[in-house]
Amino acid sequence: MSSAQNTSFHEIETVLLDDRDSAIVIIDQTRLPGECITVSLHTQAEIHDAIYRLCVRGAPAIGITAGMAYYLAAKEHLTAHPDMDADTLSSCLAKDKAYMASARPTAVNLFWALDRMERVYLANRTKPNPDILSVLRAECEEIREEDIRVCRAIGEYGLSLVKPGDGILTHCNAGRLAAAKYGTATAPIYLGEERGYHFRVFADETRPLLQGARLTAYELHAAGVDVTLICDNMSAAVMKQGLIQAVFVGCDRVAANGDTANKIGTSVVACVAKEYGVPVYICAPTATIDMNCPTGADIPIEERKPEEVTELWYETRMAPDSVKVYNPAFDVTDHTLIAGIVTEYGVARPPYKEAFEAIFAEKERRRV
Amino acid sequence: MSSAQNTSFHEIETVLLDDRDSAIVIIDQTRLPGECITVSLHTQAEIHDAIYRLCVRGAPAIGITAGMAYYLAAKEHLTAHPDMDADTLSSCLAKDKAYMASARPTAVNLFWALDRMERVYLANRTKPNPDILSVLRAECEEIREEDIRVCRAIGEYGLSLVKPGDGILTHCNAGRLAAAKYGTATAPIYLGEERGYHFRVFADETRPLLQGARLTAYELHAAGVDVTLICDNMSAAVMKQGLIQAVFVGCDRVAANGDTANKIGTSVVACVAKEYGVPVYICAPTATIDMNCPTGADIPIEERKPEEVTELWYETRMAPDSVKVYNPAFDVTDHTLIAGIVTEYGVARPPYKEAFEAIFAEKERRRV
Repeated sequence: MSSAQNTSFHEIETVLLDDRDSAIVIIDQTRLPGECITVSLHTQAEIHDAIYRLCVRGAPAIGITAGMAYYLAAKEHLTAHPDMDADTLSSCLAKDKAYMASARPTAVNLFWALDRMERVYLANRTKPNPDILSVLRAECEEIREEDIRVCRAIGEYGLSLVKPGDGILTHCNAGRLAAAKYGTATAPIYLGEERGYHFRVFADETRPLLQGARLTAYELHAAGVDVTLICDNMSAAVMKQGLIQAVFVGCDRVAANGDTANKIGTSVVACVAKEYGVPVYICAPTATIDMNCPTGADIPIEERKPEEVTELWYETRMAPDSVKVYNPAFDVTDHTLIAGIVTEYGVARPPYKEAFEAIFAEKERRRV
Repeated sequence: MSSAQNTSFHEIETVLLDDRDSAIVIIDQTRLPGECITVSLHTQAEIHDAIYRLCVRGAPAIGITAGMAYYLAAKEHLTAHPDMDADTLSSCLAKDKAYMASARPTAVNLFWALDRMERVYLANRTKPNPDILSVLRAECEEIREEDIRVCRAIGEYGLSLVKPGDGILTHCNAGRLAAAKYGTATAPIYLGEERGYHFRVFADETRPLLQGARLTAYELHAAGVDVTLICDNMSAAVMKQGLIQAVFVGCDRVAANGDTANKIGTSVVACVAKEYGVPVYICAPTATIDMNCPTGADIPIEERKPEEVTELWYETRMAPDSVKVYNPAFDVTDHTLIAGIVTEYGVARPPYKEAFEAIFAEKERRRV
């Protein structure tokens, strides 16, 4: 693993294959906001470790990384053993895939991307080596480019919901650091910035992992966006002053009725927004809408270890020893609190079930 | 200044004169939750420094400390110079008072307690030295005992609003560490604990200064209360699960219409509570109800330095350099979000102006 300092954050990509197709180059997110450093991941072990340690994070970015990892694994085998037969290669790649999938057991995009790469490999396994590598390379690159197109389309639809000079509040990081480019919740902000909208953005710090302070404030500030960092408990103070015209957040999973699981605190923001008449928009690639999940009550909520609240980041422990801590990683925002769900095929409005059916019909008609 | 380790937190008082009337003994709150240490403050400079550095904090506790400081100043002058004439002593005490008042320029209780002590001194200045010291000692002790009676009465009225086994959420620290005993928002909890109510308390950590994690979780845990620490953005998650039956918080100032200024984030909790049908109760000694302040819009909100959000407590800075930060110390909770305001003379219900008039009439009739 090699690393390089790079201070111009927005000139570098979150995840990219290097020039010689020999490594994945990522921004090491564990070093932000102090340092913006890229690292080159050459081996499967290095890639696994980078996903495990959250050097690369965010569902889309993890999926892109996993796709590239699959391609690099195939290339490594066929370079070391050009005469390897198809069955042996299939067996090796299956092992590599299982290993990579173990990096973060709950990251759906990780499995999704690996499955997608495997399907392409299996459909082409009897072809000559250069052809196999060529289709795998194209597929992992397509995963990346598809993410850019999806986020850009979400950005365009999101932008139609606000006007120049508006105040926008966001929570956690659904930004370009979580994706290939644009991000989801930040896509309308970046597109607006390109077009001189001059939004005033407020970023919740997002306890306990501080993704808002460490990542969202960092990437928006680096892009020259007018961003102000606030603590999670300050949303009412800014909304009451009329500083916020819209809330844009990402999501981890959207149920068929529009209930949305996202980073803990999202539904707090939504309750406050309701009180002050501010619309809440969920930025959701259609891949995150789960029509097999009837309501938010069917979405399991991961509970994480207490030390994230009491010890992480701190010089000394910040709570009494042995005190109980409740640390859910996500909460579910009721669909009644959501003004619209912004997908790459348009903005879904209540009632959501019918709106999603129309969105998916549109997806069938024309693929982004 | 001398200090002593003491592990049985609830056997010691937040603020107390020592046995020989030579020092104020306080719990050093800057050392919590790691260590529970008492310090003895002998000189005016030591007391000033302890208030300035937040070793003692919370409006009632600061007032009690300032009252005792005034008494100790008089004792010091008359011990060193038993023949000091009344005019010289008055002049010395006026200087001492101004010096102590400079410790925290925004703490109303600091001025209030010093003024109260000065009035008693001036009414007795021509008496013999032992008599002067005797009335001053009695007055500063009365400030402390009055606070205990007021908090206890608030606790009784608060307790009438909940039932055994209820879940209670509180924000920041309006606990015994902010007062002489019981605290305001914690008074119903402590009284309930004495009577076997077995509340399940959830304490917001309260960013950026973490008074909930460092102080409230500490004192409730030490008292054997079933307390669970959460981040400020988790209130919706616990309320949605039906875990909270009432919110009890303190306040810094209540306007005549019931709008209430309290620690930043209080109005966020109130918005979430409204969505989930949980009543919000403000625990307010009548001294904090300002009938000359028509609405919350007339309450100035202190804005504090960005470093509290980006640097304090952390091993490394947690936000990009030079990013804007908005850090209001308080917010105003609209009276429409408040189910009741619990005073030492009863629970005020909307409409608040009329309810407060009845409360103040009751205060005239019988003083707690």
